[in-house]
Amino acid sequence: MTTRSEPFRVAVLGATGAVGQRFVTLLTGHPWFELTALAASERSAGRTYRDAVSWIQTRPIDETVAAMSVHTIDELMDHDFDVVFSALDASVARDIEPEFARRSLVVTNASAHRMDEGVPLLVPEVNPDHLALLPAAEDGADLPRGIVANPNCSTIGLVLALKPLASAFGFDRIFVSTLQAVSGAGLPGVSSYQILDNVIPWIPGEEEKLEIETGKILGRVRAGTIEPAEVAVSAQCNRVPVVDGHTLCVSVDLKGDPRLEDVREAWRSFRAAPQELGLPSAPAQPTVYLGDDAPPQARVHRDLGRGMTTSIGRLRECPILGYRFVALSHNTLRGAAGGALLAAELAVSRCARRGGE
Amino acid sequence: MTTRSEPFRVAVLGATGAVGQRFVTLLTGHPWFELTALAASERSAGRTYRDAVSWIQTRPIDETVAAMSVHTIDELMDHDFDVVFSALDASVARDIEPEFARRSLVVTNASAHRMDEGVPLLVPEVNPDHLALLPAAEDGADLPRGIVANPNCSTIGLVLALKPLASAFGFDRIFVSTLQAVSGAGLPGVSSYQILDNVIPWIPGEEEKLEIETGKILGRVRAGTIEPAEVAVSAQCNRVPVVDGHTLCVSVDLKGDPRLEDVREAWRSFRAAPQELGLPSAPAQPTVYLGDDAPPQARVHRDLGRGMTTSIGRLRECPILGYRFVALSHNTLRGAAGGALLAAELAVSRCARRGGE
Amino acid sequence: MTTRSEPFRVAVLGATGAVGQRFVTLLTGHPWFELTALAASERSAGRTYRDAVSWIQTRPIDETVAAMSVHTIDELMDHDFDVVFSALDASVARDIEPEFARRSLVVTNASAHRMDEGVPLLVPEVNPDHLALLPAAEDGADLPRGIVANPNCSTIGLVLALKPLASAFGFDRIFVSTLQAVSGAGLPGVSSYQILDNVIPWIPGEEEKLEIETGKILGRVRAGTIEPAEVAVSAQCNRVPVVDGHTLCVSVDLKGDPRLEDVREAWRSFRAAPQELGLPSAPAQPTVYLGDDAPPQARVHRDLGRGMTTSIGRLRECPILGYRFVALSHNTLRGAAGGALLAAELAVSRCARRGGE
Amino acid sequence: MTTRSEPFRVAVLGATGAVGQRFVTLLTGHPWFELTALAASERSAGRTYRDAVSWIQTRPIDETVAAMSVHTIDELMDHDFDVVFSALDASVARDIEPEFARRSLVVTNASAHRMDEGVPLLVPEVNPDHLALLPAAEDGADLPRGIVANPNCSTIGLVLALKPLASAFGFDRIFVSTLQAVSGAGLPGVSSYQILDNVIPWIPGEEEKLEIETGKILGRVRAGTIEPAEVAVSAQCNRVPVVDGHTLCVSVDLKGDPRLEDVREAWRSFRAAPQELGLPSAPAQPTVYLGDDAPPQARVHRDLGRGMTTSIGRLRECPILGYRFVALSHNTLRGAAGGALLAAELAVSRCARRGGE
Repeated sequence: MTTRSEPFRVAVLGATGAVGQRFVTLLTGHPWFELTALAASERSAGRTYRDAVSWIQTRPIDETVAAMSVHTIDELMDHDFDVVFSALDASVARDIEPEFARRSLVVTNASAHRMDEGVPLLVPEVNPDHLALLPAAEDGADLPRGIVANPNCSTIGLVLALKPLASAFGFDRIFVSTLQAVSGAGLPGVSSYQILDNVIPWIPGEEEKLEIETGKILGRVRAGTIEPAEVAVSAQCNRVPVVDGHTLCVSVDLKGDPRLEDVREAWRSFRAAPQELGLPSAPAQPTVYLGDDAPPQARVHRDLGRGMTTSIGRLRECPILGYRFVALSHNTLRGAAGGALLAAELAVSRCARRGGE
Repeated sequence: MTTRSEPFRVAVLGATGAVGQRFVTLLTGHPWFELTALAASERSAGRTYRDAVSWIQTRPIDETVAAMSVHTIDELMDHDFDVVFSALDASVARDIEPEFARRSLVVTNASAHRMDEGVPLLVPEVNPDHLALLPAAEDGADLPRGIVANPNCSTIGLVLALKPLASAFGFDRIFVSTLQAVSGAGLPGVSSYQILDNVIPWIPGEEEKLEIETGKILGRVRAGTIEPAEVAVSAQCNRVPVVDGHTLCVSVDLKGDPRLEDVREAWRSFRAAPQELGLPSAPAQPTVYLGDDAPPQARVHRDLGRGMTTSIGRLRECPILGYRFVALSHNTLRGAAGGALLAAELAVSRCARRGGE
Repeated sequence: MTTRSEPFRVAVLGATGAVGQRFVTLLTGHPWFELTALAASERSAGRTYRDAVSWIQTRPIDETVAAMSVHTIDELMDHDFDVVFSALDASVARDIEPEFARRSLVVTNASAHRMDEGVPLLVPEVNPDHLALLPAAEDGADLPRGIVANPNCSTIGLVLALKPLASAFGFDRIFVSTLQAVSGAGLPGVSSYQILDNVIPWIPGEEEKLEIETGKILGRVRAGTIEPAEVAVSAQCNRVPVVDGHTLCVSVDLKGDPRLEDVREAWRSFRAAPQELGLPSAPAQPTVYLGDDAPPQARVHRDLGRGMTTSIGRLRECPILGYRFVALSHNTLRGAAGGALLAAELAVSRCARRGGE
Repeated sequence: MTTRSEPFRVAVLGATGAVGQRFVTLLTGHPWFELTALAASERSAGRTYRDAVSWIQTRPIDETVAAMSVHTIDELMDHDFDVVFSALDASVARDIEPEFARRSLVVTNASAHRMDEGVPLLVPEVNPDHLALLPAAEDGADLPRGIVANPNCSTIGLVLALKPLASAFGFDRIFVSTLQAVSGAGLPGVSSYQILDNVIPWIPGEEEKLEIETGKILGRVRAGTIEPAEVAVSAQCNRVPVVDGHTLCVSVDLKGDPRLEDVREAWRSFRAAPQELGLPSAPAQPTVYLGDDAPPQARVHRDLGRGMTTSIGRLRECPILGYRFVALSHNTLRGAAGGALLAAELAVSRCARRGGE
């Protein structure tokens, strides 16, 4: 795809946390990216990654990565990386990410800069054109700089399910209630004493993120900024005792009274830039429709498309908004590290090709 | 409360199942009702209750009840009971319950007759006046006959949360998504292999029940029948790995733009017939408002009011319908055996008092 | 029972944590003890208890307690309390508890002083005579001073199940593997991301505690110190996704080849000082035998005897040690706050009676 | 490996259940075996596999298999298959399997014939020589006939962990307590209402299987039959709320006082016939030692070696038997369908090579 022969040099910030571990796992053996540096908190710095991390992935740590030293974030700040993946907490990310963004492309899972004017809030199949917000490379470099933000994990599944409907029919109003996995809260995240045999129908800040991010992602680039889509979103977010996979119950007022079969077909036929470009992390299908009687289930379907496919089912009429369905998205793959990786692939793919002309 | 000195004679049909066990537990030591007969399937008949039941309640079986013989349903059909509690499957209940209803008051948790024209679908705090549907006692008996149906377990929590709002403000449209406990499916019910680390966003028939029962319960008695309330309900029902307690995320279009404080106050001040009559199973408060930042949680709040109180929290504005909140109700207490018991108490209380005049 | 007419003045240290909340709940309405002060970390101090605590008990906070101010531990150090309940972390408890023990009876759930020579490691039904280790009241006070330690939560269930066997038969060797609830790790304790759909077969330090504490508790008072029982304990400890209740699989080499029926009878007939004295928190039966085919189950049986009874079942022969069975104990009631409360009741009961003579 | 050029023709009996689905999944794309027929109960017969099955695997059904017709077992009885995989219930398997075994190699996961004298109870890395029990092919056929039984799922993990120790040191006595996943009970298996927030410390028949099967598997072929190993096994079996993966806590009296490092090395270096023969389903390492401080965890480690590797950790001294450790094995892969598949590969590999000479 790209014309470069050497791999892109990559660093991961916040490498020991739940999302950081996912980045490390996905980068192992990646055809374009080479993991060259790991940073984490002061407590971990100076130790090998193996010693610093409390590894919870089912795939064992790659031996080469396990032997790498963990750095402080400050130690990496003067280095040149092509891409920096950030799994930092939002509070730390706020100041740190712009520093790295002066030299590198920063793709971040943190919420700190998502709503910044110049920052694309990117879901590669949904709004690839938003990459145009990135500052043009001024000095002939063939790679972009700046920050690309990954949306909130529950937003990503929602907009992937909505995008084919936005393109085909349009809508103004969305009801969504979520049943979110505990991994979305990271490590240590939610105490088991609080969530076992329980539902916690409140995730602070989550509903606001869903309601505001959706408009930006579905918006249009106008004069170097994003004009948000005019859509009212009402979200109710719940934490449930599930390891991975966010379930979304959605109602939407599709325009033009489409037949249910046309709606199903919109999801089945949906393909976008990552599929057309053949990006390494792109799933063959961004959305699959499982069936009218086939509900997407967290444990059964979250790994479809290596965790990058949004599963949809149970399309039926809604007595209030017209249409309703259920969607499921893997929150730490598509919704975090996998989504960020795909965003990076899209960004470097476009720019590398442009540079290669 | 009642003028009778002797207790009411009570039978339980389907006594060995999950709801049947709850009936047996709640009837132990009841001040008005005396458990005099137990019926279950052919497989259990002839054995003592202790031997026939796979007891899963945390309170041990009462020794007297444990020693009782389990009968077939046919064996009980000629006997005179004041009240028959039915925890039968809907398929069995359809033919059996009308037979018992010729001699006794049948209070049923089965869905078979819920939508029958002459059957009150009773939530004692919500529509006590619907008892007027029961056939008048023709022969001077002081006790009612006929069938009183307990609504679906998720409907009960919904209408309890809605009733104070219906009285104070009114509404036309309701969105509700549910997160329902596995006990709602009875025993054996949902396989653990299917629900552990999973959400199943489909409970066959459940959404339809919520959508149709709500209108009947909130309706008015007109000329010996129920005129349903005109309310559009859009429900999405999910099974979650929780033992007991159904969580409901609700949006509603309250009329008259009430202040949030007035809505909260409607729940706080709600009292109804069961409280006024001091019925034995009535909670002091049918609804409690936990707070704007206090979500009702299944494990923490399901036992409030001995499982008979609906907990509500997180009232806030909804961008689409105006108001939204979260409610929680214990599905096998208020939503099944406890609700049926309270219904029976209401029915005999009114009639016994009338008879005693 | 006691000759005092006024209640004992009580403080709780570490009042906002999981065990602290249990202390507060159990002390509400207690017939002998009056909760007069609450202490927690600097972060909580100065706030009302309602504001400082993240309440997770199913019984709502008592309104009077909710309005109490939370103090720092230092603030309480000069006050006179009859009994101080400590739910502090071991690291904090080490220095703090001896300070309070100079003026008051300190009953602690922390592990810091459990193996101290002068500290009774008390399970009231098992080794009530170990209270003789407490320093005699020198100044005519009718109440004891010093530290009484609650054993580890898994040890308590084990020694309660073993005590009747020790009295009736004796033994030298014990195998025990545990399946422990997450509440044993407190709050936040075990991350849900780590324990959902998982078993963690390692609880650091737990096996050592079981192996060493058992000998001390079953030991004898000799010349003002404890001579440990000579018993080899091999423990394997596992964390499982259960809220409350530790399950123990035990094998033991009972002496004298007792018949299984004699072993069952030892558990059934077991009564001890708390039952004889009628202590407020004493269960009617410290141990119950559920049956050969009746395994004690965490959710079903943990609340027997208000969480103070150890349930036992499945006694059968062991091909290696001769006898094996399963036991279950509630780890935050009997195993923490409830056990400590019963220990305090025993201590003040004896001394108050002595003082009253 | 084999000299045959055409694939072996394979049927699966009991194809719609939990283990049957695993067989179907593992056979899809298998290099030696071709799935040619599916049988299930009368209820499923005549439907396509897609319609008959309630698919719960994370990998979608292969489209070709999904379109296959499901037969009754009787319909397949006259057909010639090279290998028949049986996932039947023990009660059905008892009579059916010998019928198929007259024409084909039957590899069964059912318990019905495990202890039959002429039936190898096979774990390919542990007792490959037991295949000698199979009747010699009398008519020049190059493939074996008869029944090969897969041991109980918890036994398999145990003997894999023990085999390297048996070879290097020997032992007489084993304590094992298990924490078993719900998938071991199949579908519907354990009710979620019974296992959520619970441990069930009783799996009927399981302890007996562990105690008797271990001796047969570790035994020697003598004069055409198996002489069991003389080893006393004491098992306590528990069901826990885990999806897949059986955890085993083991104590063992290794002979010759080996150093802990020698024990670790026995597991690390263990290789056997399946590895030497390069069987398609053989893991690179049958056993891995994770570390002294690294407990094998069901969710984290069950998929090692594509679910065919037994993970071991926490080797330490046992005060009673000398050595103890924790082992983990995937109960529906290695412990059921995967183990049976590997057994079939071993059987046809040897015989095919023999036939090819």
